[in-house]
Amino acid sequence: MRMRKRTGWMVLMSLLCMATAAFAEEAAPVDAATFMANNIWMMVATFLVFVMHLGFATLEAGLTRAKNTVNILFKNTMIPAIGVLTFALLGFNLMYPGEAFAGRWFGFSGFGISLPEGGVTSAYNAGYTYWTDFLFQAMFAATAATIVSGAVAERIKLHSFLLFSVIYVALAYPIVGMWHWGGGWLAARNFHDFAGSTMVHSVGGWAALAGVLLLGPRIGKYVNGKPKPIMGHSMPLAVIGVFLLWLGWFGFNGGSVLSGDPGPVSYVLVTTTLAAAAGIMGAMGTSWIIQKKPDLSMVLNGCLAGLVGITAGADVVGIGASIFIGAVAGVLVVLAVLGFDRARMDDPVGALSVHLVNGIWGTLAVGLFSAEHSFMVQLTGVLAAGVFCFVFAFALFLGIKHILGLRVSEEEELKGLDIGEHGMEAYGGFQIFTTQ
Amino acid sequence: MRMRKRTGWMVLMSLLCMATAAFAEEAAPVDAATFMANNIWMMVATFLVFVMHLGFATLEAGLTRAKNTVNILFKNTMIPAIGVLTFALLGFNLMYPGEAFAGRWFGFSGFGISLPEGGVTSAYNAGYTYWTDFLFQAMFAATAATIVSGAVAERIKLHSFLLFSVIYVALAYPIVGMWHWGGGWLAARNFHDFAGSTMVHSVGGWAALAGVLLLGPRIGKYVNGKPKPIMGHSMPLAVIGVFLLWLGWFGFNGGSVLSGDPGPVSYVLVTTTLAAAAGIMGAMGTSWIIQKKPDLSMVLNGCLAGLVGITAGADVVGIGASIFIGAVAGVLVVLAVLGFDRARMDDPVGALSVHLVNGIWGTLAVGLFSAEHSFMVQLTGVLAAGVFCFVFAFALFLGIKHILGLRVSEEEELKGLDIGEHGMEAYGGFQIFTTQ
Amino acid sequence: MRMRKRTGWMVLMSLLCMATAAFAEEAAPVDAATFMANNIWMMVATFLVFVMHLGFATLEAGLTRAKNTVNILFKNTMIPAIGVLTFALLGFNLMYPGEAFAGRWFGFSGFGISLPEGGVTSAYNAGYTYWTDFLFQAMFAATAATIVSGAVAERIKLHSFLLFSVIYVALAYPIVGMWHWGGGWLAARNFHDFAGSTMVHSVGGWAALAGVLLLGPRIGKYVNGKPKPIMGHSMPLAVIGVFLLWLGWFGFNGGSVLSGDPGPVSYVLVTTTLAAAAGIMGAMGTSWIIQKKPDLSMVLNGCLAGLVGITAGADVVGIGASIFIGAVAGVLVVLAVLGFDRARMDDPVGALSVHLVNGIWGTLAVGLFSAEHSFMVQLTGVLAAGVFCFVFAFALFLGIKHILGLRVSEEEELKGLDIGEHGMEAYGGFQIFTTQ
Repeated sequence: MRMRKRTGWMVLMSLLCMATAAFAEEAAPVDAATFMANNIWMMVATFLVFVMHLGFATLEAGLTRAKNTVNILFKNTMIPAIGVLTFALLGFNLMYPGEAFAGRWFGFSGFGISLPEGGVTSAYNAGYTYWTDFLFQAMFAATAATIVSGAVAERIKLHSFLLFSVIYVALAYPIVGMWHWGGGWLAARNFHDFAGSTMVHSVGGWAALAGVLLLGPRIGKYVNGKPKPIMGHSMPLAVIGVFLLWLGWFGFNGGSVLSGDPGPVSYVLVTTTLAAAAGIMGAMGTSWIIQKKPDLSMVLNGCLAGLVGITAGADVVGIGASIFIGAVAGVLVVLAVLGFDRARMDDPVGALSVHLVNGIWGTLAVGLFSAEHSFMVQLTGVLAAGVFCFVFAFALFLGIKHILGLRVSEEEELKGLDIGEHGMEAYGGFQIFTTQ
Repeated sequence: MRMRKRTGWMVLMSLLCMATAAFAEEAAPVDAATFMANNIWMMVATFLVFVMHLGFATLEAGLTRAKNTVNILFKNTMIPAIGVLTFALLGFNLMYPGEAFAGRWFGFSGFGISLPEGGVTSAYNAGYTYWTDFLFQAMFAATAATIVSGAVAERIKLHSFLLFSVIYVALAYPIVGMWHWGGGWLAARNFHDFAGSTMVHSVGGWAALAGVLLLGPRIGKYVNGKPKPIMGHSMPLAVIGVFLLWLGWFGFNGGSVLSGDPGPVSYVLVTTTLAAAAGIMGAMGTSWIIQKKPDLSMVLNGCLAGLVGITAGADVVGIGASIFIGAVAGVLVVLAVLGFDRARMDDPVGALSVHLVNGIWGTLAVGLFSAEHSFMVQLTGVLAAGVFCFVFAFALFLGIKHILGLRVSEEEELKGLDIGEHGMEAYGGFQIFTTQ
Repeated sequence: MRMRKRTGWMVLMSLLCMATAAFAEEAAPVDAATFMANNIWMMVATFLVFVMHLGFATLEAGLTRAKNTVNILFKNTMIPAIGVLTFALLGFNLMYPGEAFAGRWFGFSGFGISLPEGGVTSAYNAGYTYWTDFLFQAMFAATAATIVSGAVAERIKLHSFLLFSVIYVALAYPIVGMWHWGGGWLAARNFHDFAGSTMVHSVGGWAALAGVLLLGPRIGKYVNGKPKPIMGHSMPLAVIGVFLLWLGWFGFNGGSVLSGDPGPVSYVLVTTTLAAAAGIMGAMGTSWIIQKKPDLSMVLNGCLAGLVGITAGADVVGIGASIFIGAVAGVLVVLAVLGFDRARMDDPVGALSVHLVNGIWGTLAVGLFSAEHSFMVQLTGVLAAGVFCFVFAFALFLGIKHILGLRVSEEEELKGLDIGEHGMEAYGGFQIFTTQ
């Protein structure tokens, strides 16, 4: 075990706060107070991204049935644990390999996390500490697996899902992420995905697509070939989830400035908020027109769609564009939910419509609304990530299917995964319709 | 679409962090690190005020019936979206018109938001960015409409409420707010309402009063002329709401210092917390004495009453006074809830008792406990805001009533607004008493 | 009432930000921007610790039965109010008596809180304001009482519990805390309990033990001498609780650095997170092996166990050690829950297993994994706190039992404390099994 001394730390700190200037992206000296303020901002952003895991847990639980609630909560509790531990073991060093590259498509700088020799900052971010850098990125990593969770809910075997998550978070997410954020080939081509419409949301979305295709729809979703709505069991949980995700996105996008620089950070918060609000409006209008009555779950997904949509360009598009991107995302998500339903692709929480469709939309929108970025390069990034992630996820799910199986038995699915996988119920004492 | 360049930003930033000194209220130079720290604090405060919207959503949903839950959640999801978008369109420039005044009762500096020429700060707040200023104030604005939502719950038509909210947030809130915070006539008279006991809470409360009077009580609330309690459907949701509101109030009051200045900010947090705690105690004691058993919903409203009460004077009253103000608020809220009930004014969540009664109490208390402020001036502000807001809201509700109608049909009210307005239920699968 | 002037504040601030340098622990000057950043960090940490009270409320409510939910929520709403008010009255000055000592086992510097003469900082923490110092410590104090709440749930009389909480928080917690954190005898012996595995969690845990022993098990918990599981009524509430506690722990541990010093703070966040994640893993594995199916409530308690375990040494153990400490905590908590069950010690939420067992484990682990600290000194601290707290709590509960009684009537316990103590139900309208 490595022992650390607090006094040693402090001496080092004082010396190195100064020294970090040399590494700083803007080549401007970062004084000690600014270093501390940067670090505080990034820690706050880390907490907010952490909150997103609770948001996903409650959203997914709310939009599915009471008999599968324990299972969903269990998966969503495991995911941040898996994400943080695998990221410490190898993900961080796959995503930010420093100079340990093999052709800009893959790099790895070794197992485990430890302070760089003689420093408290990483080579990538001189404005705050190595530990803050690790923790912020680790919280990010786990969100990709969470996106998958919702799409495959109510029918996937617990241990198969956990195994998939471990491997996908440990390998697929950081390898693709490195292409853009770790100095890889996409970074070199001026691809722009500010906080991860592609690098996080569609990375999760493509895996969700693979899972949905391999698992097939839930029992009862299609009656005589027609989609039948399966209502979620708690809209308050879903609303709590969406508000927590919106809150978390302030850290997700705001923290992706990778400093506390007041102008850019606060601008990103404004575009993020306006896109979320516009997504709500877009989805409400579309739902009210198509479904005759405004559907709450559509509006909630509209909010998330706006947030996913603005994530790629929050820093480079204008105020008007941020509202437009969000509104279009709100329209798209309603059409996509209805479309996937008709296409017999059963996604209980609308994860494909939110994260995949709008991850793509948001990334391409950067090419439309920022004069400095090329639509074709944006499209290249979308496709490259898509091919890699879908193939990786499909192959991984397929392998797991052959070894462990993917889907629970029909009996267990009807009875609920809570009893089947965990031997307990989510709502002891409440009378719940057994047919639901 | 306006395109922005990140590098341009940064250069501007560096130059202007220095330049902002000239505008600073205290006429003291703000160095770059302090500017960043200020900005971080105000962003954190913004997030906390945002959390209040989730707090209101869960509180209101918890204190009403399961059959109207989707409707309440829908309204509370729409409100921050409406608030932020209308504030960007015109509210911000109505509330802070700069020099574009017409007699200090009204001013408007044009539509839309954009950076002031050659700067990153607004003329009002040199200590942090224009964007942070906008976002903090936009989050504030929406809270006024949310207060109305609870009082008119379980019987108002969805589109009528949404239309009311859009107009009230876009016009009434910023116009009144300008009188005090935008350099208007109340500011000139040394009226003191630190974070909005009057300017936010009673602005919402007066509109709630107008709505309650025009809508009348819910079916079943009065049996043979006597009030009958209609129990909320989820006390956990209500408790989550109150804790989130308390948390949010740290940003609501703490952010209203409008800088990260350590002494004033932390002092405000202490008076705010003590008033909330004293409100809990006051309400518990009063409820235990009058109702024989301590009522949880009374204690929850006591907490909020203490918070509303301290909001006007959190920065200028002493520690002892903050406890006294909170305790009195806790007593008042219990008496007010019982009083409104007897007066046949049906307010499902106690919004009038919390926000209107204690908004007035808190504002007047500044005149009692701060030697620098006059009771008569405080009373003037309370009355002026009251007359304007009540008349505005009453006329607006009346107009909407004639055009769209205000109240759902008796059949829909009995069946629940979830089915009637949204075609869905909040708790799919749960057995719920249909008579409730 | 003491009146305060804002302008006076500001002048004082400017002068004293400089002056604080003299008191600073590291004897290094703290410039104004650093002072502000420190203060912001400590305020954020305060908010996060506040969130823990909501976390405890929802966790405890979720893991118990629907008929006792109002009672649990009521207690958990009262506790922060009691904690903050008693801490303002005397707790703060018992815990940090300055030089007003009586033999390093007891000290008291008078009633009430007010700014130190001519300063804005306390003598203990020159890096941020006196008010921030008070509020952070006050939020901490209340957590000790909350731990007790869960263990004695579903059978203790409301007013007896409230009286216990007032006295325990006002006296026992700050007296023991002073031994280590207020300059008392344990501080002098190089005892190390960074953020309170012993000083907070086992202080709560020992009182919980006394309560459990004096109250006896709930009716129906033991059938023919064998423990029968009594399921909680809402796993979503429990999960919300655990995530909020994890979130709160970032402030609990991160704020215990008592400054925004980037290196130590961010390191503590990483060890805290890794221990929580490892606790989840340890509990999942142990539960899956022993109980055949992975139990969600075990995994949730595993997360909290990891957090309690790392709390004593988060700043001094290595990365590997933090994972090991968390994993062992996850194993221990499952074994302890099953063990207490067999020993007929009925603890509805597992508070003893989480806070007492792992509070001890975490404190001793510092002696194992930090070369600078002695296992024997750690053991001394654990035992001293244990003897004092257990005797204090046992005597206090016993006294209350003789005066007011401790346990509700059998009839009330069967019917539920919500009706018995509060005259209301938590879930109006829902059909709930009356036998549960």
